Amino acid sequence: MSLTLQRIPAFSSALFCRCSSKSFQRHCSRISSKKVRVSDALSSEETGANVRIQGWVRSVRPQKDNLFLHLNDGSSLQPLQVVASSHLNTRDLTFGCAVDITGTLEKSPSKRQNVELHAQHIKVVGECNPVDFPFKIKERHSLEYVRQFPHLRCRTNAFSSLLRIRSEATAAIQSFFRDNGYVQIHTPVITSNDCEGAGELFQVEPAGHKNDSDDPNPHFFSVPAYLTVSGQLHLEVMAGAFSAAYTFGPTFRAENSQSRRHLAEFYMVEAEIAFTESLEDLMKVMEDLFKAATEHVLSSCAEDVELFHKYTAPGRRDQVDLMLKRKFNVYVLYFSSDYFYFLKKWGCDLQTEHEKFLVKHCGNVPVFVINYPYELKPFYARDNQDQPNHTAAAVDLLVPGVGELCGGSLREERLELLSQRLAQYLQLREFGSVPHGGFGMGFERYLLCILGLHNIKDVIPFARFSHSCLL
Amino acid sequence: MSLTLQRIPAFSSALFCRCSSKSFQRHCSRISSKKVRVSDALSSEETGANVRIQGWVRSVRPQKDNLFLHLNDGSSLQPLQVVASSHLNTRDLTFGCAVDITGTLEKSPSKRQNVELHAQHIKVVGECNPVDFPFKIKERHSLEYVRQFPHLRCRTNAFSSLLRIRSEATAAIQSFFRDNGYVQIHTPVITSNDCEGAGELFQVEPAGHKNDSDDPNPHFFSVPAYLTVSGQLHLEVMAGAFSAAYTFGPTFRAENSQSRRHLAEFYMVEAEIAFTESLEDLMKVMEDLFKAATEHVLSSCAEDVELFHKYTAPGRRDQVDLMLKRKFNVYVLYFSSDYFYFLKKWGCDLQTEHEKFLVKHCGNVPVFVINYPYELKPFYARDNQDQPNHTAAAVDLLVPGVGELCGGSLREERLELLSQRLAQYLQLREFGSVPHGGFGMGFERYLLCILGLHNIKDVIPFARFSHSCLL
Repeated sequence: MSLTLQRIPAFSSALFCRCSSKSFQRHCSRISSKKVRVSDALSSEETGANVRIQGWVRSVRPQKDNLFLHLNDGSSLQPLQVVASSHLNTRDLTFGCAVDITGTLEKSPSKRQNVELHAQHIKVVGECNPVDFPFKIKERHSLEYVRQFPHLRCRTNAFSSLLRIRSEATAAIQSFFRDNGYVQIHTPVITSNDCEGAGELFQVEPAGHKNDSDDPNPHFFSVPAYLTVSGQLHLEVMAGAFSAAYTFGPTFRAENSQSRRHLAEFYMVEAEIAFTESLEDLMKVMEDLFKAATEHVLSSCAEDVELFHKYTAPGRRDQVDLMLKRKFNVYVLYFSSDYFYFLKKWGCDLQTEHEKFLVKHCGNVPVFVINYPYELKPFYARDNQDQPNHTAAAVDLLVPGVGELCGGSLREERLELLSQRLAQYLQLREFGSVPHGGFGMGFERYLLCILGLHNIKDVIPFARFSHSCLL
Repeated sequence: MSLTLQRIPAFSSALFCRCSSKSFQRHCSRISSKKVRVSDALSSEETGANVRIQGWVRSVRPQKDNLFLHLNDGSSLQPLQVVASSHLNTRDLTFGCAVDITGTLEKSPSKRQNVELHAQHIKVVGECNPVDFPFKIKERHSLEYVRQFPHLRCRTNAFSSLLRIRSEATAAIQSFFRDNGYVQIHTPVITSNDCEGAGELFQVEPAGHKNDSDDPNPHFFSVPAYLTVSGQLHLEVMAGAFSAAYTFGPTFRAENSQSRRHLAEFYMVEAEIAFTESLEDLMKVMEDLFKAATEHVLSSCAEDVELFHKYTAPGRRDQVDLMLKRKFNVYVLYFSSDYFYFLKKWGCDLQTEHEKFLVKHCGNVPVFVINYPYELKPFYARDNQDQPNHTAAAVDLLVPGVGELCGGSLREERLELLSQRLAQYLQLREFGSVPHGGFGMGFERYLLCILGLHNIKDVIPFARFSHSCLL
């Protein structure tokens, strides 16, 4: 085999001469300037340091002697002010272009920032035609307008703040569970069972697959396979070994809806806890999770959160503080026979209006609603055996502005009771079955709640819903 | 509306009387014993403490006066030894059953553990018929055997250790990126584009959907939609706003393969970094990521990792330590015209045998291979413009035992060069385009590498591959 190897001393400059002599020269000319992110520059105490900062121009203000730029690199909402001699201004230095700047960090005379960058070199590395660019300098674009540009909306202040918050909220949720001894399980996206009997499933087959009824084995997985609607079944398996397990990932509904509350792909946090004998245990986890994640987000993304609380949802910050301070309410719902008939007739659960009424009634503090009529809850919810009411040990957490944020239940662990209801579920209970319970929290709903936003499409990087799968 | 609310004082015991008076009585009888996890009990310094521990029985040894149990609750590999008077032994106290035990933690006279639990009460909460239970006491079951029981294999030592390691490795990878200023992006699972041109796609439509060629709009999303093969395109969007972004989630291939290296659903870590001008930057991130995650796993899951290094892959620990200590190698591959012809003819890349040869040649230290022939790499890899060789600025990281762990490249940011290759990719480069690069790491391959395992089905909670979608 005529294959020749040449070893390159690791990370020697020779390597990069080989890769591209141009990039090497660029590299050498910058070697004395330390690469710094905007967020670090803004909090820097040190002045006079020679730095190199790369990012996108958010504003250009040429004056007689000086040129002022605002530079953003996505590390913070606040841009870095750049001051340069006006002879560094060029035609291609426009709103939206990408630049590579070297200079020194200096104390700013303005009150609006501590530090500014005095530029010695400005290089436009990526041009941006301001006529074609859909966002305009100094203009505030509506969330609806911005949504049309999935490949660019992360360049707006609001959506970049949202995605930083989403990233930190994700980290906070994972830390919460890890600190409390939960094992994170990557429950599968593709599954052969339909956990909730939810209907509205997406089915999966290789592209080009034909549904040929003559084929004795027409399926890639030998059985019909679907996108998961919940990781609960898989988590129940894991709770039977780890006592406490959680999953955080995408779930799917093929709902033909264009509403502001529905997506075809959305994120769920689900937890399952073994040896749980009361809804109290579950409610404590939900409340602690909500409060821990929210406190983390408020402190680690203060500036980003403030953008929403100030401009998009005035008053929401006080509501959030109240939610954190107060103990969540717990309510039992008694259904009169009339109302119960209504629910049965329509086959539906508490409706959004009822949820909002309840939360408002509770002074905008989140409220747990427990013990729903047995018939309204899925087969796996534990029978409270409280005839004549006959309820299931299920709980929903309702929050201001959103309605249902979490839903959970004690699970029916008694083999004989389950046998009466469903065969598929049985083998999970056969070997060392334990009382357990769990819940799921809609992650997008959580973000809507704490930020006071109204459209689920505004809190997910790339929204998927019926008739829309952009990028 | 005849709906009545009754407020329950939050978390009062009254609530739980209402929920289930039986569970309340159980609750009260245990109120003096603190619930403790096995891992905490094992590291407890305090003796004489009254505790309540719940878990599954891993061994039962009745002796004349005393009964010895091993109790595991999934919080650690090591079980807790339980000592009880033999009159507490019952027929249903078998291998695999779930128990709820109260007693006191005492210093153990044995050298095998510091602490043991002196039981006062043992309650079997879930029976386990040892004849039907597929795992037998004191028997070591092969990984192949265990794989047949997706709903129970997490109860074995090896697989529960694996899942604890997987959970910690996930946390370590996320911390690495967060500490280095990356924003975590939930890139979509459902996508309308085929990033790699990889073929082997899964297509998604609502269940029951008929491919009706007469229907003018036959698709749920209006366009054909697939399960993602890579989040790269979406991450490139995000790197254009945040400078550094990563994703960690499931990716899919409809490969009709039963091999030990392939799954239909597997996890990928992908990162994208803007303003990157050399492969050095990318290689540094890959090497730092590998080392940081591995050091974390070795220290936080020492006992679990040791299980694999001791029994399944003797010698692997030394190899892993070597990988951590040594700087990774960098190699350029020169293809003679013959070999190049061979590769072109077969349309394939470096093959597994070549990869293994290379790693062995490098003394089992991971090796970066850089600058592949331009024609072999995808359209988005940056042209090195180094005629006559004509290579692309691409890099693969090869590791012992696995072969390719990561693949990455500088991305072609030059609009005019890309225009010649592909239209779809163009609009990403229009507004403030910057030099950037990124890579992907197969998470299951990473686990195989550090643990010395050979079958990808042994490192994922629920394996999906052709003809198999259990649970």
